[in-house]
Amino acid sequence: MKFQYFMPTRIFSGERCLAEHGAALKQLGTKALIVTGTHSAKANGSLDDAVKALAVNGQAYCVYDKVMSNPTIACAYEGASEAVSNGCDFVLAIGGGSPMDAGKAVALLAAQEKPVPPAEIFSASYARALPVAAVPTTAGTGSEVTQYAILTNDAAESKTSVATPLLFPRFAFLDAAYMRGLSQSVTVNTVVDALSHAVEGMLSVRASSVSDALAGESIALIASCIAAPGLSDLDDEARRKLLTASTLAGMVIANTGTTAVHALGYSLTYYKNIDHGRANGLLLARFLAFIERTKRERVAEILARMRLKTVDDFARLLDGLLGKREKLSAAEIEHYAEKAVKAANIANCVVRPEKDDLVEVLQGSLG
Amino acid sequence: MKFQYFMPTRIFSGERCLAEHGAALKQLGTKALIVTGTHSAKANGSLDDAVKALAVNGQAYCVYDKVMSNPTIACAYEGASEAVSNGCDFVLAIGGGSPMDAGKAVALLAAQEKPVPPAEIFSASYARALPVAAVPTTAGTGSEVTQYAILTNDAAESKTSVATPLLFPRFAFLDAAYMRGLSQSVTVNTVVDALSHAVEGMLSVRASSVSDALAGESIALIASCIAAPGLSDLDDEARRKLLTASTLAGMVIANTGTTAVHALGYSLTYYKNIDHGRANGLLLARFLAFIERTKRERVAEILARMRLKTVDDFARLLDGLLGKREKLSAAEIEHYAEKAVKAANIANCVVRPEKDDLVEVLQGSLG
Repeated sequence: MKFQYFMPTRIFSGERCLAEHGAALKQLGTKALIVTGTHSAKANGSLDDAVKALAVNGQAYCVYDKVMSNPTIACAYEGASEAVSNGCDFVLAIGGGSPMDAGKAVALLAAQEKPVPPAEIFSASYARALPVAAVPTTAGTGSEVTQYAILTNDAAESKTSVATPLLFPRFAFLDAAYMRGLSQSVTVNTVVDALSHAVEGMLSVRASSVSDALAGESIALIASCIAAPGLSDLDDEARRKLLTASTLAGMVIANTGTTAVHALGYSLTYYKNIDHGRANGLLLARFLAFIERTKRERVAEILARMRLKTVDDFARLLDGLLGKREKLSAAEIEHYAEKAVKAANIANCVVRPEKDDLVEVLQGSLG
Repeated sequence: MKFQYFMPTRIFSGERCLAEHGAALKQLGTKALIVTGTHSAKANGSLDDAVKALAVNGQAYCVYDKVMSNPTIACAYEGASEAVSNGCDFVLAIGGGSPMDAGKAVALLAAQEKPVPPAEIFSASYARALPVAAVPTTAGTGSEVTQYAILTNDAAESKTSVATPLLFPRFAFLDAAYMRGLSQSVTVNTVVDALSHAVEGMLSVRASSVSDALAGESIALIASCIAAPGLSDLDDEARRKLLTASTLAGMVIANTGTTAVHALGYSLTYYKNIDHGRANGLLLARFLAFIERTKRERVAEILARMRLKTVDDFARLLDGLLGKREKLSAAEIEHYAEKAVKAANIANCVVRPEKDDLVEVLQGSLG
C-alpha cells in the first residue's frame, strides 16, 4: 500500500449550491473571468446563477465565452489575455470538460509574470496560477477536481495535459439541474468518459485503497443509472448520481492518472474527430479484456461494482449505449498504436501493453 | 445528494515514506517544533526518521515531547510557547491522536498575533495557523487528515474540539512500520476508534456518496484484520491495512463529524479514564441497535461491509476485542446521557436520540 493521495478542492454539491454557497467565491478575488462555451451555460442557467452569486458578493466580472470542444492552445492564450487586460484576479469556469480545462489553462497563463511561449505550455514549470472555481454542467470530465487542463496539441497531433497542483480548483459547485437539457448523445459520451476514468483508475499502477474506494462508488453509481431504462429518460435523481460519479472519478484520476485507453483515445479525437468520452468508451471493453488475461481478479472487482459477470456483458452494455462504431483502416490502427505506446500513461497500466496489444485493442474496437 | 467535501491534506503512504518524501517538509518553513509524547516516537523510530528528514532538508528543529494522553489546554499553550520562543515556523506532530491533536493546537496558538485566552480556545475565530505535518504511529484517530484538535476541557468536564480548516495538516506521512511495537491493548483501542469513526460517518446526516465510499472501504479493511486471528498477531500487511483504514475514517469524519457515540464516549474518558477508542467501542454496538430500529437498511450496509449479518454478530465481534466491560452506576448513566443529549454531535445522527435513548445505550453497554 505505497501510495499518495491529494485532492484539495472544496466540493459543494446540491441543487442551488451556487446560490447557497456562492459567498465562498469572495475568497478568490475581486474580479472574475467567467470562462465558458458559446451556448450551453447560457441555456442551462449556470451562467445566470454564477453572475448572481458574484453580484451578491459585490464582485465584478468579464465573460470569455469562446471555448470550443477540445480547446486549443490559442484559446487558452486568448482567454488569458482577456483576464490580464480586464484585471481579472480569478477564474470561474463553467461547462463541460472543454470550458473547465480551458479555464484552468487561462488561470495558469494569466498569472505568469514572464509569458510562457505557446511551444512550452506543456513543459514549463509553473509557480503560480489565478484561483479557479469550477461549475461542471455535464457528468463526464471530473475536471472540477483535477490538476489537469487538457488542450489540443497540434505539434504532437494529440491532446496533451498541462498538469500542476496549482490547477486544482479551489471550489467545485455541483448542481445537476444544469444537466436537464443535455442531449442523449452528450449524456452518453460524458457518462462513458466518467466510467472510463473510474475503471482506468482501478487499472492504474498508482491505484490505492483510497482511489479504489472512490472508483468503486463511482462505477456503482454509474451502473445504477445505465442499467435497464438506458440513458434516454434520466430523472433528477439519476442526474445527481451521475454528476457525483463523475466527480468521484475525477478524484480518482487526479491520483491514479489515466491509462492506455486515454492514450489511444486521443488519436481517435485528434484524427477522426470522435468525441473524447465516446473514444474512451469505444476502447474500454477491449482494454478490459486485455487486462483480464493477466489480472483476472482485478477485472472481476470492476465487474462486480457494475453488477456484471463477464467482460462480454460489459461490452454489450457499452455497445447498447454507443451504437454503431466508427471504423479505422489498418494503417490508422498501426499509426495510433505506434503513437500511444510511447505515451506516458502507458507506463501507468497494471499490465503494460506492447504495441501489438494496442493494435489488438484498436482492431477489436474499431477494426 | 446535497453534500460538501473537503480534505486538502497531501498523503504519503508506505514504508520509509518520511525518507522518500521528506523533502516536501521544505515547503513548510525553516524550523520545526516536533510535538510528540514522552516515549513511543523515540522507541518506534519515527522521531529518528523525522529528524533525519529535517537534517537532509537543512531545517532546524526543537522537540516538545510532553504531550500526555487526552492532552490538556495547558499542554497546548506550553507547546505554543516553545514554538514561539524558539522561532519555530512549522509543526511536525508525531504519535497517536494525543500528540497529533496537541501539535495541531500548538500550531494554531503559536500563530496568533494577539494571544487567545485559554477560556476562549474553543470559541475563538482563527485566521492563521503554523503549517503542520503529521506522522501517525497508531491506526486510530485519523487526526492526520482532519481539521480537529481535541483537548480535555475541564470547564465543560469533557473533551472538546477546536475545529478550523486551518488545522488540516499540509502533509500526512503514513508508515505502518512505526506500529510494530504497539501493545495489544493500544492496537485494539485504536482500531476500535477508527471503526467507530467510519461507522459513525455512515450514521451522520452529513454522509454523502464520497464519505460513504471512504467509510465503506475503511470498514472493510478493518473487518479483514479483526476477523479470525484476532488482533494479537498482526503482520505488516495488516498494520498497513489498519493504518490506511484509520486515515480513510479520518477523511470521513472530517466531512461528516461524529455522532452520539463520541458525545457519550467523552464522559467515559473524562470521568472514568476509559481510553477514548475503547469508550467508543463499548458504545458502538448498542448505538447501532438503536439506529437499526429506524434505519434498518443503513445498518445493513454497514454490516455488509463487515461481512456480518446482524448487530448481535457485530456486538460479539467487539466483545471479543474489548473483553470485560467497565460498569456505570445509574446516577452516572443519567449524568452522562444528560450531558450528551446537549452535545452538538447529537444533531448529527441520522436518527436523533432523545435522552432516554442515550440512557438505554449506556445501560446496555455499561449498565
